[in-house]
Amino acid sequence: TSGANIVHDLVEAYGGAHYRVPAGKDDYELREAGMGRIADIYVKEEDFEKFEKGIYAFLDGLPEEKMTTLAPSEFLTELGHTINDDSSILKQAALRDVPIFSPGLMDSMLGFHLYTYSTTKKLSLDFVKDLRILGEIITQTKKTGAIMLGGGLTKHFTMGSTILKGGLDMAIQITLDRPEGGSLGGAPLVEGISWQKMQTESNFETVIGDATIIFPLLVIGILS
Amino acid sequence: TSGANIVHDLVEAYGGAHYRVPAGKDDYELREAGMGRIADIYVKEEDFEKFEKGIYAFLDGLPEEKMTTLAPSEFLTELGHTINDDSSILKQAALRDVPIFSPGLMDSMLGFHLYTYSTTKKLSLDFVKDLRILGEIITQTKKTGAIMLGGGLTKHFTMGSTILKGGLDMAIQITLDRPEGGSLGGAPLVEGISWQKMQTESNFETVIGDATIIFPLLVIGILS
Amino acid sequence: TSGANIVHDLVEAYGGAHYRVPAGKDDYELREAGMGRIADIYVKEEDFEKFEKGIYAFLDGLPEEKMTTLAPSEFLTELGHTINDDSSILKQAALRDVPIFSPGLMDSMLGFHLYTYSTTKKLSLDFVKDLRILGEIITQTKKTGAIMLGGGLTKHFTMGSTILKGGLDMAIQITLDRPEGGSLGGAPLVEGISWQKMQTESNFETVIGDATIIFPLLVIGILS
Amino acid sequence: TSGANIVHDLVEAYGGAHYRVPAGKDDYELREAGMGRIADIYVKEEDFEKFEKGIYAFLDGLPEEKMTTLAPSEFLTELGHTINDDSSILKQAALRDVPIFSPGLMDSMLGFHLYTYSTTKKLSLDFVKDLRILGEIITQTKKTGAIMLGGGLTKHFTMGSTILKGGLDMAIQITLDRPEGGSLGGAPLVEGISWQKMQTESNFETVIGDATIIFPLLVIGILS
Repeated sequence: TSGANIVHDLVEAYGGAHYRVPAGKDDYELREAGMGRIADIYVKEEDFEKFEKGIYAFLDGLPEEKMTTLAPSEFLTELGHTINDDSSILKQAALRDVPIFSPGLMDSMLGFHLYTYSTTKKLSLDFVKDLRILGEIITQTKKTGAIMLGGGLTKHFTMGSTILKGGLDMAIQITLDRPEGGSLGGAPLVEGISWQKMQTESNFETVIGDATIIFPLLVIGILS
Repeated sequence: TSGANIVHDLVEAYGGAHYRVPAGKDDYELREAGMGRIADIYVKEEDFEKFEKGIYAFLDGLPEEKMTTLAPSEFLTELGHTINDDSSILKQAALRDVPIFSPGLMDSMLGFHLYTYSTTKKLSLDFVKDLRILGEIITQTKKTGAIMLGGGLTKHFTMGSTILKGGLDMAIQITLDRPEGGSLGGAPLVEGISWQKMQTESNFETVIGDATIIFPLLVIGILS
Repeated sequence: TSGANIVHDLVEAYGGAHYRVPAGKDDYELREAGMGRIADIYVKEEDFEKFEKGIYAFLDGLPEEKMTTLAPSEFLTELGHTINDDSSILKQAALRDVPIFSPGLMDSMLGFHLYTYSTTKKLSLDFVKDLRILGEIITQTKKTGAIMLGGGLTKHFTMGSTILKGGLDMAIQITLDRPEGGSLGGAPLVEGISWQKMQTESNFETVIGDATIIFPLLVIGILS
Repeated sequence: TSGANIVHDLVEAYGGAHYRVPAGKDDYELREAGMGRIADIYVKEEDFEKFEKGIYAFLDGLPEEKMTTLAPSEFLTELGHTINDDSSILKQAALRDVPIFSPGLMDSMLGFHLYTYSTTKKLSLDFVKDLRILGEIITQTKKTGAIMLGGGLTKHFTMGSTILKGGLDMAIQITLDRPEGGSLGGAPLVEGISWQKMQTESNFETVIGDATIIFPLLVIGILS
């Protein structure tokens, strides 16, 4: 997942919230009011401060031997175990031993706090280790499948992890990205065949649409 | 920059090339012919093997004390100094002491080789360190500006790095991403005002279009 | 509405149907099999022949004084009254005296048959008259509102019809068109303010999304 | 072509102009200032008044026998012959006997003036006749080709006109429309094969991009 999804899970886990942007407020007014806008919702600066405090407290409690040896997925599991909020994805994943991979984690407010923390105390994450952890899971799995919401880094990471086995066996991508820009996010899944990121015999579908609408409809369809 | 841009620079630097996909070949045929497709161009598997050999040779020559301490930007500078091809961006950047930041570097074929190499020899990159390096550059710079081609991780990394100073002073983003998906890539630059990633008094423009067409036209316009 | 919507309503009204394109059939094979593709559905050539026969029979029965004097909306009402299929939009609109305006009607298979028929018998539609008919309705209406699915000609026609009153009072547009191309379809409704096609005090929303998904969700939301 | 292209050609032909929208002016301010916005340009209300006066003067001079018998293309040729401005497309087309087909002409400010004029004097255009005129041209032509900028009505009209011959022999479409919405504008040209609107042996290319950038580049490329 992206670092942003983790950050916004944690903002709520530490007591913050996400609000709808009031009509008529522009970005200059939002800035003055301490509101960070994400499309049509915003987060309060003070909720980011709670989040910062939470992360710093967690880092203060992290044993020294874990400060420079953890893979990002291990770091997120450690962090998940310290969360009280039951609706936190991070907490639930930690409780169920589901690793969360976030290849771009450093590029988020969580990464930012790791960086500011690292200016005073030795701290680093081992991103190469995550490739080994995921590689091992893939090797031990008979068939691999992926549901990819959006494109970008996380799509590439997911598909790339199966390259030694000849690609994913099943996949759905729901995205608004398009091929014209030349990005991987916009590339249809069929392109993965040529890269051995999709099996020749695989079952897949690229869905062009808004994942926030299409994915819930898909889940409702499956459940009913 | 993305890991992919670095990989494709290196593929050419190590003697490989990029070819136009022959009309009428589908991805199943490309796979059999050892051709990895990126939209309408492809790379030969054998060129990726040259690239792999080049990276492994470079890693074999890397002194042990650098195997676990380098920031990605430092790693890329080391690598750039070993390249012979004058048209390599990596080489020219190394020669001119221009650091290349690539926050998602692990999620690329270069990252993949670092991972396979790391299964036999201790090797890791310090992504937190890059934030410190970039942070120092930003602190010492009077005015910051950015030209962002595409969105995604690299856009966030660039804008996020200026947050302690109140944001970028000048910026252009050329992208085909749109706000509807809710991604940062598709967010207009004005949203950055609310996040202190664009200065209140900054000068910026979000251009919706294909960067491979718009950017060269822009450069021609400036040069003439 | 577009001429296409009317044609496909009539195809079904005359006993035809719309089918899902079988996987793996390309457009060359579809042509040979007499299947006209519209994205992921197709229509059988033989169903178009039923449609043609139906239209010709209708035209044969049309009194001579109506052959050159009808506005398109009047023509569609006449046609609707001859339809047996209760699920036909054209029939239901005729029964309820709801005029259907179709400014681009000639550019459709219905228009095509009017044209071939006109090569043997005098036949024409008075498109200017429809502007007078709609103009009168608008003049007699206190408040005007529009739900526009997609953009293009029909959007312009709808908004333009209110220009003498200062614009629509309420409007929703659901579209995937975007402003970059410079088309009216992609223009946000707010642009209509400057043209007196939206009232200064009007209530409106431009929704970027697939109308075939968004509109049913909207209706479900309103009904429940 | 669309009615809008003709209107804006005439606005300039009658002495009006198109201006860039001044930064910071919103649509409410533009309305008050008498400026009609089209994306990033605007037209002055007073220039539309010149246009209206021009059209009314032309209609006043139109012989009575032409008031109800002309096809739109014939009407535009008559109009073109009365224009003084040499850079007018309408004038140049009239001088060179190139018919201009505009299937949605009524849905434009020109159509609007025809309508208001028709409330006082008998006036109508024969849209069916244009199909006969174009049909005859197509029948007498050995090979047909089309360059289509954008999609919509004009694309359908162009392709549909060749259906009796089995479709176009050559075609380029440059568009930002996409297939997801299900519109013909967004349909790739290959779909035309199944409809006999593109010949089985035809040569064609669908280009996804901004026609205002791509088309001039194409013309420069051909000229040099």
